[in-house]
Amino acid sequence: MERKEEVGKENGNSEEELRTLSDGSICGFESLHRLLESSLSPPVFKEVSRLLIGMNCGKPLEPLPIIEIAKGLSSQHDFDIQAFRFNADKELLREPRIVRVGLIQNSISLPTTAPFLDQKKAIFQKLKPIIDAAGASGVNILCLQEAWTMPFAFCTREKRWCEFAEPVDGESTQFLQGFARKYNMVIVSPILERDLKHGETMWNTAVIIGNNGNIIGKHRKKIKLLQMKCQNHIPRVGDFNESTYYMEGNTGHPVFETAFGKIGVNICYGRHHPLNWLAFGLNGAEIVFNPSATVGELSEPMWPIEARNAAIANSYFVGSINRVGTEVFPNPFTSGDGKPAHADFGHFYGSSHVSGPDASCTPSLSRNKDGLLISDMDLNLCRQLKDKWGFRMTARYEVYADMLSRYVKPDFEPQVISDPLLHKNHV
Amino acid sequence: MERKEEVGKENGNSEEELRTLSDGSICGFESLHRLLESSLSPPVFKEVSRLLIGMNCGKPLEPLPIIEIAKGLSSQHDFDIQAFRFNADKELLREPRIVRVGLIQNSISLPTTAPFLDQKKAIFQKLKPIIDAAGASGVNILCLQEAWTMPFAFCTREKRWCEFAEPVDGESTQFLQGFARKYNMVIVSPILERDLKHGETMWNTAVIIGNNGNIIGKHRKKIKLLQMKCQNHIPRVGDFNESTYYMEGNTGHPVFETAFGKIGVNICYGRHHPLNWLAFGLNGAEIVFNPSATVGELSEPMWPIEARNAAIANSYFVGSINRVGTEVFPNPFTSGDGKPAHADFGHFYGSSHVSGPDASCTPSLSRNKDGLLISDMDLNLCRQLKDKWGFRMTARYEVYADMLSRYVKPDFEPQVISDPLLHKNHV
Repeated sequence: MERKEEVGKENGNSEEELRTLSDGSICGFESLHRLLESSLSPPVFKEVSRLLIGMNCGKPLEPLPIIEIAKGLSSQHDFDIQAFRFNADKELLREPRIVRVGLIQNSISLPTTAPFLDQKKAIFQKLKPIIDAAGASGVNILCLQEAWTMPFAFCTREKRWCEFAEPVDGESTQFLQGFARKYNMVIVSPILERDLKHGETMWNTAVIIGNNGNIIGKHRKKIKLLQMKCQNHIPRVGDFNESTYYMEGNTGHPVFETAFGKIGVNICYGRHHPLNWLAFGLNGAEIVFNPSATVGELSEPMWPIEARNAAIANSYFVGSINRVGTEVFPNPFTSGDGKPAHADFGHFYGSSHVSGPDASCTPSLSRNKDGLLISDMDLNLCRQLKDKWGFRMTARYEVYADMLSRYVKPDFEPQVISDPLLHKNHV
Repeated sequence: MERKEEVGKENGNSEEELRTLSDGSICGFESLHRLLESSLSPPVFKEVSRLLIGMNCGKPLEPLPIIEIAKGLSSQHDFDIQAFRFNADKELLREPRIVRVGLIQNSISLPTTAPFLDQKKAIFQKLKPIIDAAGASGVNILCLQEAWTMPFAFCTREKRWCEFAEPVDGESTQFLQGFARKYNMVIVSPILERDLKHGETMWNTAVIIGNNGNIIGKHRKKIKLLQMKCQNHIPRVGDFNESTYYMEGNTGHPVFETAFGKIGVNICYGRHHPLNWLAFGLNGAEIVFNPSATVGELSEPMWPIEARNAAIANSYFVGSINRVGTEVFPNPFTSGDGKPAHADFGHFYGSSHVSGPDASCTPSLSRNKDGLLISDMDLNLCRQLKDKWGFRMTARYEVYADMLSRYVKPDFEPQVISDPLLHKNHV
């Protein structure tokens, strides 16, 4: 967090826009991919891309054309827009199952000192043209970022930010239901949830809105708690004081069968847990979204690794979303690192992207500005990769079911084989 | 495998050495890292490195000096040599625990048509100076590549290559025991094992030789089967016809407590299974080796992702080793892909590297030539990362013990929540 980053408005990456900071590092580039593209000769860039973001059906990932109305909204409202297509092999007994998926990343709109209602309304206003661009582009499933209705204020440990929490059928859901109906679009909406039927406790929740505008599961009262997906793993690191606000989720690892495919939602810190990713896979997910809020110095080199590994290991697609920008709070806070109090959480580096089950990956959206990433994906690729690599078949889950059952017992003894000469040497 | 690769002898990466192939791709570069280093301006390379291979204690990974004798052996015998240091924070109640780890990658030495005894001896001769370079450099724990005594002949499905199999205390172990004693060095030796006490069956096995030249566990007859580590997951993909030769291992996930730290061995295809990596972590490993044999078109973009994810998720170091070169066999074979018979398996792309628990990673060894990678690692970093990120603490293993126990039952029902309007629409 000490390295000052300038949040620029540059688009593209001519070397002129790069600035060198006092510590010799650079800033002002939009993304790793664009930085490499502008710095390397085309054949070198091609080989570097093959090594870094893989190949899809033996070729580099295909860019998709972007329709004029979306381009217009993008330049008018200054958000990044990129689009790609994941192909699959043609099958003889199954038609292609192509789904168009959209990811939105954004910064907050007003300073955190503005009245809460104004802050919230301003975010809604900011998102409107981006959601319209997605809808007009024919996106089937859209996912927003974690806690999208509010600044990521958990770093402050101040409870007044709890006011941003909403019930599952609250204002933000109603706002999105309109778009879902208008565009026949499934929308995944990660919010801070106020659970009115459980003593007004809070959860970090993703509401799944069906393409008819319905909250999926709404009419199945018996499984009320399964209507949404709560965060399964809560961080205890850095300024992510989220455990101060809500508990680990109690909704399991539901997979939602929507009109356009089976989706799961792995919220934020859950991406660090391979077992969490696995559970969505075992429940049949074909696309797992990872709406997140994470900052540069802490996690940026891990960001593509964990998502891509999950996509590979589980033979599904992963859509990773991170918010953008630096949020400055009214009251300074310390970070448990012995350093002086400060008022911001660091730079949320955006870089939203989609990972394929075949180890291919889209370039990332901007590190600095709002963005919409559109990806066509033939869901047939999931089973094709299962058939090719056989990870599910060769996984020996019974070995691990047994091991984990033993591990969670207080008297678990690790399987350690000591060199018998070791202790002899030490005598 | 269709893209022809030329196995060059170039060192470094001046643009002159790069050659463009008929499909517009390039070859002739030693590694992604060197290619980027020679193609990018220093500040851009610095930022790209930060994003790609992370930071260690807030700084780029430190290169280690290489001693003259090792440099001499490297140029005399034409193998790549690189060395790096993973630092940890200074603790007040624990001394640093710095271990020097060596990884060796190599091609075979004679054509696969040579008499088997000559082939094997030639590999021993080829390895001698590389092991000497490691020993002279003060390496504490050395790991060789998978099935290092032989060509990776499983692609042929011909059983005559079984002749290369050896008992755990066979010729290759005896060869390495001399080095272990001479250099006070633990050696991990992955071989095709002939199990004389179990009907001469074969295993894909790593023999763990202690720094006194003993086979660790040798004197503990009761746990004979735990003396070594057998491959837990066997591929059923491409030309990896290994399941024709040996079964999944039955030795669990042992962690070996050596004079220099607790190590595990995750052989080859086991790297695709996050649960396999996890099990070594739960048993207390601080370094997990992944001796492998894998080829370009199939796995190269996955290669760094899976190892680094394992290091991050489990808060330990991972040493990844892949063999080098193209091995051509006497009799052509088909690959189950409808294409004509061919006599080689593709290009083993080397690229051995070490991943740290803090998401940092060494650059990779050459894609084309033999190599020795030396890494100093302060093992204190493992616990420091556990304390920082709390992945073990927040993992909720009881949830997954339960889920896997249910999953392995034939009547398992995935947790799926269907949009109630979905089937209505379809009616």
